[in-house]
Amino acid sequence: MKTLIKNGTILSSDSEIKADILVEGEKIVAIGQDLNDDVDKIIDATGKYVFPGGIDQHTHFEALTNTGDKDTAGYETTKALIVGGTTTIIDYAPQDPGCGLIESAKYRIEKRAKGKTCVDFGLHSLITEVNDKMFDEIKELPKHGINSIKAFMAYIGSPLHVDDGTLYKVLSESKKVGLTTFVHAENGEIIDMLQKDCVKAGHTSPKYHAVSRPPIVETEATRRALYYAEELDAPIFIVHVTTKGATDAIAEAKAKKVRAYGETCTQYLTTTKDVLSDPDFNEAAKYVCSPALRDQDDVDAMWDALNDNTLSAIVSDHCGIDLHEMKQVGRNNFVDIPNGAPGAADRINMIWTNGVAKNRITRQKFVEVCSTFPAKINGMYPKKGVIAVGSDADIVVFDPEYRGVVRLEDNPNGIDYNIYEGREQIGRPEVVLLRGKVVLEDAKFVGELGQGKFIPCEPYAYCYEGRK
Amino acid sequence: MKTLIKNGTILSSDSEIKADILVEGEKIVAIGQDLNDDVDKIIDATGKYVFPGGIDQHTHFEALTNTGDKDTAGYETTKALIVGGTTTIIDYAPQDPGCGLIESAKYRIEKRAKGKTCVDFGLHSLITEVNDKMFDEIKELPKHGINSIKAFMAYIGSPLHVDDGTLYKVLSESKKVGLTTFVHAENGEIIDMLQKDCVKAGHTSPKYHAVSRPPIVETEATRRALYYAEELDAPIFIVHVTTKGATDAIAEAKAKKVRAYGETCTQYLTTTKDVLSDPDFNEAAKYVCSPALRDQDDVDAMWDALNDNTLSAIVSDHCGIDLHEMKQVGRNNFVDIPNGAPGAADRINMIWTNGVAKNRITRQKFVEVCSTFPAKINGMYPKKGVIAVGSDADIVVFDPEYRGVVRLEDNPNGIDYNIYEGREQIGRPEVVLLRGKVVLEDAKFVGELGQGKFIPCEPYAYCYEGRK
Amino acid sequence: MKTLIKNGTILSSDSEIKADILVEGEKIVAIGQDLNDDVDKIIDATGKYVFPGGIDQHTHFEALTNTGDKDTAGYETTKALIVGGTTTIIDYAPQDPGCGLIESAKYRIEKRAKGKTCVDFGLHSLITEVNDKMFDEIKELPKHGINSIKAFMAYIGSPLHVDDGTLYKVLSESKKVGLTTFVHAENGEIIDMLQKDCVKAGHTSPKYHAVSRPPIVETEATRRALYYAEELDAPIFIVHVTTKGATDAIAEAKAKKVRAYGETCTQYLTTTKDVLSDPDFNEAAKYVCSPALRDQDDVDAMWDALNDNTLSAIVSDHCGIDLHEMKQVGRNNFVDIPNGAPGAADRINMIWTNGVAKNRITRQKFVEVCSTFPAKINGMYPKKGVIAVGSDADIVVFDPEYRGVVRLEDNPNGIDYNIYEGREQIGRPEVVLLRGKVVLEDAKFVGELGQGKFIPCEPYAYCYEGRK
Amino acid sequence: MKTLIKNGTILSSDSEIKADILVEGEKIVAIGQDLNDDVDKIIDATGKYVFPGGIDQHTHFEALTNTGDKDTAGYETTKALIVGGTTTIIDYAPQDPGCGLIESAKYRIEKRAKGKTCVDFGLHSLITEVNDKMFDEIKELPKHGINSIKAFMAYIGSPLHVDDGTLYKVLSESKKVGLTTFVHAENGEIIDMLQKDCVKAGHTSPKYHAVSRPPIVETEATRRALYYAEELDAPIFIVHVTTKGATDAIAEAKAKKVRAYGETCTQYLTTTKDVLSDPDFNEAAKYVCSPALRDQDDVDAMWDALNDNTLSAIVSDHCGIDLHEMKQVGRNNFVDIPNGAPGAADRINMIWTNGVAKNRITRQKFVEVCSTFPAKINGMYPKKGVIAVGSDADIVVFDPEYRGVVRLEDNPNGIDYNIYEGREQIGRPEVVLLRGKVVLEDAKFVGELGQGKFIPCEPYAYCYEGRK
Repeated sequence: MKTLIKNGTILSSDSEIKADILVEGEKIVAIGQDLNDDVDKIIDATGKYVFPGGIDQHTHFEALTNTGDKDTAGYETTKALIVGGTTTIIDYAPQDPGCGLIESAKYRIEKRAKGKTCVDFGLHSLITEVNDKMFDEIKELPKHGINSIKAFMAYIGSPLHVDDGTLYKVLSESKKVGLTTFVHAENGEIIDMLQKDCVKAGHTSPKYHAVSRPPIVETEATRRALYYAEELDAPIFIVHVTTKGATDAIAEAKAKKVRAYGETCTQYLTTTKDVLSDPDFNEAAKYVCSPALRDQDDVDAMWDALNDNTLSAIVSDHCGIDLHEMKQVGRNNFVDIPNGAPGAADRINMIWTNGVAKNRITRQKFVEVCSTFPAKINGMYPKKGVIAVGSDADIVVFDPEYRGVVRLEDNPNGIDYNIYEGREQIGRPEVVLLRGKVVLEDAKFVGELGQGKFIPCEPYAYCYEGRK
Repeated sequence: MKTLIKNGTILSSDSEIKADILVEGEKIVAIGQDLNDDVDKIIDATGKYVFPGGIDQHTHFEALTNTGDKDTAGYETTKALIVGGTTTIIDYAPQDPGCGLIESAKYRIEKRAKGKTCVDFGLHSLITEVNDKMFDEIKELPKHGINSIKAFMAYIGSPLHVDDGTLYKVLSESKKVGLTTFVHAENGEIIDMLQKDCVKAGHTSPKYHAVSRPPIVETEATRRALYYAEELDAPIFIVHVTTKGATDAIAEAKAKKVRAYGETCTQYLTTTKDVLSDPDFNEAAKYVCSPALRDQDDVDAMWDALNDNTLSAIVSDHCGIDLHEMKQVGRNNFVDIPNGAPGAADRINMIWTNGVAKNRITRQKFVEVCSTFPAKINGMYPKKGVIAVGSDADIVVFDPEYRGVVRLEDNPNGIDYNIYEGREQIGRPEVVLLRGKVVLEDAKFVGELGQGKFIPCEPYAYCYEGRK
Repeated sequence: MKTLIKNGTILSSDSEIKADILVEGEKIVAIGQDLNDDVDKIIDATGKYVFPGGIDQHTHFEALTNTGDKDTAGYETTKALIVGGTTTIIDYAPQDPGCGLIESAKYRIEKRAKGKTCVDFGLHSLITEVNDKMFDEIKELPKHGINSIKAFMAYIGSPLHVDDGTLYKVLSESKKVGLTTFVHAENGEIIDMLQKDCVKAGHTSPKYHAVSRPPIVETEATRRALYYAEELDAPIFIVHVTTKGATDAIAEAKAKKVRAYGETCTQYLTTTKDVLSDPDFNEAAKYVCSPALRDQDDVDAMWDALNDNTLSAIVSDHCGIDLHEMKQVGRNNFVDIPNGAPGAADRINMIWTNGVAKNRITRQKFVEVCSTFPAKINGMYPKKGVIAVGSDADIVVFDPEYRGVVRLEDNPNGIDYNIYEGREQIGRPEVVLLRGKVVLEDAKFVGELGQGKFIPCEPYAYCYEGRK
Repeated sequence: MKTLIKNGTILSSDSEIKADILVEGEKIVAIGQDLNDDVDKIIDATGKYVFPGGIDQHTHFEALTNTGDKDTAGYETTKALIVGGTTTIIDYAPQDPGCGLIESAKYRIEKRAKGKTCVDFGLHSLITEVNDKMFDEIKELPKHGINSIKAFMAYIGSPLHVDDGTLYKVLSESKKVGLTTFVHAENGEIIDMLQKDCVKAGHTSPKYHAVSRPPIVETEATRRALYYAEELDAPIFIVHVTTKGATDAIAEAKAKKVRAYGETCTQYLTTTKDVLSDPDFNEAAKYVCSPALRDQDDVDAMWDALNDNTLSAIVSDHCGIDLHEMKQVGRNNFVDIPNGAPGAADRINMIWTNGVAKNRITRQKFVEVCSTFPAKINGMYPKKGVIAVGSDADIVVFDPEYRGVVRLEDNPNGIDYNIYEGREQIGRPEVVLLRGKVVLEDAKFVGELGQGKFIPCEPYAYCYEGRK
């Protein structure tokens, strides 16, 4: 099967060129001017931008299933991501209770994602049980296609939380085998104190979610984690950065030659914490995620940090927490609202609309932070993350002229709300190829469940270049 | 005319792929697997690396002619650069005495380079006379294809030196029209004092060149220039960085969101100041360049700074100063030795040999610092600096298996010495294309004088991305 | 009762003058040349230095009694401090189990120290139970003569440890009422991990005490505590600093206008961790204190930090842990060795010997860090800490010509070892006055049990000057 | 002759006590309660503060005489300083043209000050001619009672300016013999450029004095000078600091253990640059001093920097430039207005009024920065700068209840204006003693011309403590 994408403008992280793309099987086999069109299928990309499929390196599909809890973000809902221009995710694979990192990852690949997922996926391991076996398994992760491990500094009292001893040792051990440590940097102990003080004062509505997670809890934890990375000369990646203080800390760490990187999320670039003050609990509760939403100054700082290379990726932190049931648990106390919101299906469109179309970032930066860099740091580059000969033909043909409004009903994500509902949308994917197969056409999903597959992440990836 | 380069491994700044390259006219028109070979010429690159032609963004050809002084680096000597894998230079265009920036540049393009140069070239303007007209002309430079202007903080008492008032104003004015200010950062006043103290003490041999230009004179001037850039939010590029202190200053400036960049030179990566102590004046004098050569610690720091992105380019600072006549002027006093040495023809080979082959940098870093980044910051990207569809077909087919020794006689550079004479060489360019034309074949120059042409540098280039 | 001290050289924190001192009742009433000697007693201080009585602001007398554990440092053993030139301590008053801060302090004053203590004393409150009452009591401490409160970041799993939420809130609340927060800055979680790893590896001898408490655990915690102080603009005092990294952090905090101060201990200025490697458990165990002893580089850094005003006091961290019984608990596992050592009786002599006599600090610095500054920060100045008209007549007449060797038997401290046993001693107190009364004469104790009294510490002391 | 000052409150830099002071001859011989009043003269200080005579370490008396220019600040005008509570100055001794540092200082002591000065004085050497002899003389300065040397980074084109080579060498040489280098830190080259640009644009009124000397010119030069001090580990004192940026630079240098100190002036604490915009040339011109006056933010930053010990002294930078003749030179062009204003006679009263009485500094800080610290850094302590037994009896009895308004006619300073004219005044000196002699009584001068004498400044003073 040969497919030719003609006359588009191909975007990369540092240039754009007018050229045709020839796809054969799962791969891109040629890029050129006026390529021969003796092919099975021709896609006319005149007036369109053609960029590598979006890579969302921070999603939580089926995060809760194994614990018996409900989770509305089943892997089958990744269909919405294809519609939204994302072809690969790096999903989190938490240790299932009583299981090791590797068994949990394998179970997730074979028993959960298989036959359902519509996007390709890699995995980050995620610590929920600290013991000797866990540390032994870190050494084995590369063999199983995992090149990163995540530690939570927040969530005191939950299995997610790891203490500083564990964090320090994870950084140290991960470095030995070429992993990158991903860190959720919030000071759980201060949050815990502030939450209790809020509740004691009768402050239980969703707006106190942000009050009890002020910028300092994130900035402090970021500084601390970076300091460990500096002392150990270990690579570190700070997930979902939201404060100017944290970006300053990352920039200063880089200046001291620490291999420090960070991402932010679509919501921290588009939405302020004002939404948490909505008197309608349902309206406010859907925005309860952690870190909490911030003020406009911090929102601006996130765009700046992307432009000056302090931050390297934009992700969704997609969580399948529904509103009518799961979020209701915290109706009387914000502390009990499950943290998280969906967003993976809207990431590409919202970043193009609010970033590229509003001149906050260039098209090149858009490709870099939504696809190319995530491929690099997760050890998938240049297989993924770029339109190049030999790469997987994961391609988005994007119509920049489209104008619309975000409607959940137009692209159901399996959850009963969309935090971008009613927002302006500029541009949209018209055609998407996943490993050479057309899975979106005329902006309609034409693929099938289970079309996605597990993509191993190579160790000693981006963070280690020039350092081994 | 169509040329096909088959079966090579194409290197870019972030990946390498096995693919063929189809060249038509001056351009690359396709990259692909098993490209159709119905072409005029096929180059077999099996077992070879194929990378974009080297770009040396710091050369001084015919720097002195206009002042009546002799200069052995005529543009016709750029033939040696083709042999050495460099296809483009960004040469310095000093104001000729009594002339403006623009007239000097035009004269250089039309009257000097034309008909002689074997490589393509862009120009940096270089201040030698500070007056109102000069500042007026800064605004006009972009129209004339110049996107940078250089100021010397060193060389007190020479027309090259500019004071801090001028530097500050140049940074300020250049920012208004999208130029980048290139700065030779050495504290001229301290050097002057130290030189006088050396001479007073009877210390006149070449080794005192380094004594009178200690690291602090460079580090201080670098810090000062960066501070001006920070205060003015103006982009700045520090040329020929040699000290760890200066790289630290650049890294700290970046962390404060200053658009600060820097380059180092081949010699600062391969040679220590020990050579200046050679009792044979001729042996020592050829290494007299500024900044002075440093200790091994600083040499190591330069490699580190390339790897952690503090420095962005490797250049030659090529100067056509001969040994048997020009360097002799300083036989009795190091202060009078003209500063500078040739190196443009050896840059690619010496960096591959000492960098890539010794595992100090990756092949991707090699491409980035020797070609891609120089193209970007000088506003020539993606026309130059990358092997991509639509780009100029400036291509090096490089044989990594070659082993040899550097001999001036093997690649005469027009000057009577080569500072790498006798050094081990690993790998060499076998074939070079300049805008589609084969100009090196079997490692022999097959081009002609005058084949190079002036390439305009676009303003608002790399430094301004995401900042306008 | 009038006493005249004649012909001595009076030392202060910034000068030394030859003058007589007239004492009447508890106070100094005049300082002058050739003061009238119509007095009850004349002390000839010819050839002697006369300085304010030492103030040891970090002692733990009877720290453990209330918990039912044995403690050999009863208040009656402060007799040894008089012999050693210390007339005032600021002792720690931990919350007794189930008791509030204030009740614990009152009990200590009335039921423990009264009738026994030979030195005057103030108290720092020390948190062992975190609850609402504790925070309410912070507001009341100034009324009870307490101007400081201590929080331990170390000792995970013990009642001493407070989490970051508590630390943050203590800093915040303390600032509101003019207290200074004293912090034991060691990262308890990393220590816990390292201890477990040591034990798992069979590394259980005393030298692993230092291995499991490396400099980073102190430096990190110090940085973190200082960051909270910075964000809250609250004063902070770091106790027993031992690492260069921690002193750098304090210096940087000062540069950012944080009211950050610190002390070190006699042992960290005189002894390296080599002693922990002694094969004789008893020899090694007596040096097990926390933070752990360090290398010579850190020892040197402590002297430097005193000289450049980064650190402000030298203390003993005196603990009454005996060797033949209490330290034996850890014979099979260093983790179980109670941390701490005596030292209050030797502080003045060891600092004079190793600091003043070895030209590491001036006599003025000696007075400042051993007496004047502690009086200031604890709100006792100028009542204590200086020889001035109106101040308490706490005076040491010190013979700089004395030469001897430290022997526990010469000045029993109530504990069965002295970590300075056998060390050279230069100089010693000949006469000591406590509030006007001669309590040491001819280097012999001539006072009585119970002669000391509680001295209230004023709030809004040194840290708040110019800031209210 | 014995004098007793009874019942006052004696202020020092860290405390205040109620006590009497007995003066005999030139010295303080006793301080005590109820001192015997068998004396020649009793001064009742009931309700008064008694503090050490003010020390103004930055004055320019007869700065211009030798050059043939007029100078209205003859040493006889120091009578006004006694009225204003200042008993000692450290005056600048510029090299007279063609003379050495030492000859110039001696001439000043013997031929100018002698028989005229009403205050005691020390001298700073001040470079105006750079040559070998000057560097040789640096080594001899301590023998002649001089412990400091001043270098101007500003004033390009004037003999005052020294280049960086000289500054670097002065710092280096001064350190060898225990001198402290005082630096006027303004970037002369940028000022020169900005002045020319102002004039070219027709901006010639006094307000452009501040425009052409923006904060960056001071902050940059301060950073640069501090960097030299850091690299050389040489002590440095920055004179007349006015910008927050400069105080930050000093604070950061201290954190890196640089022996960096600074002073600010009364005018920078009390007056903003708004006065330079007065349409009346005479009103504006009298405030033309360098650095230029700043905005309120910088004024506030100066008070903060005194309180957090970043700055250590308040001085006048007193210059005898009259208005009706000398300042008129710049009527048509601000560049020609001689820089400088009188202020030595008002310093104590204006700092008390605007600092102590407005709660911006404590009384202790007032004594420290107006007297004690200047004595220390200039090697006069404890002879000067403190009320202590054995010290010179330079004593101010200050009435805090006085209320008035500053009138030049009430305390003529020899110049035809007072920049504080019409300002509110709180408190005033009632009695002043100079070395034991009453020279002010009932706020009236009762001394005589020539009562002051030269006071040698000891080398290896404050900056060197604990560093030798």
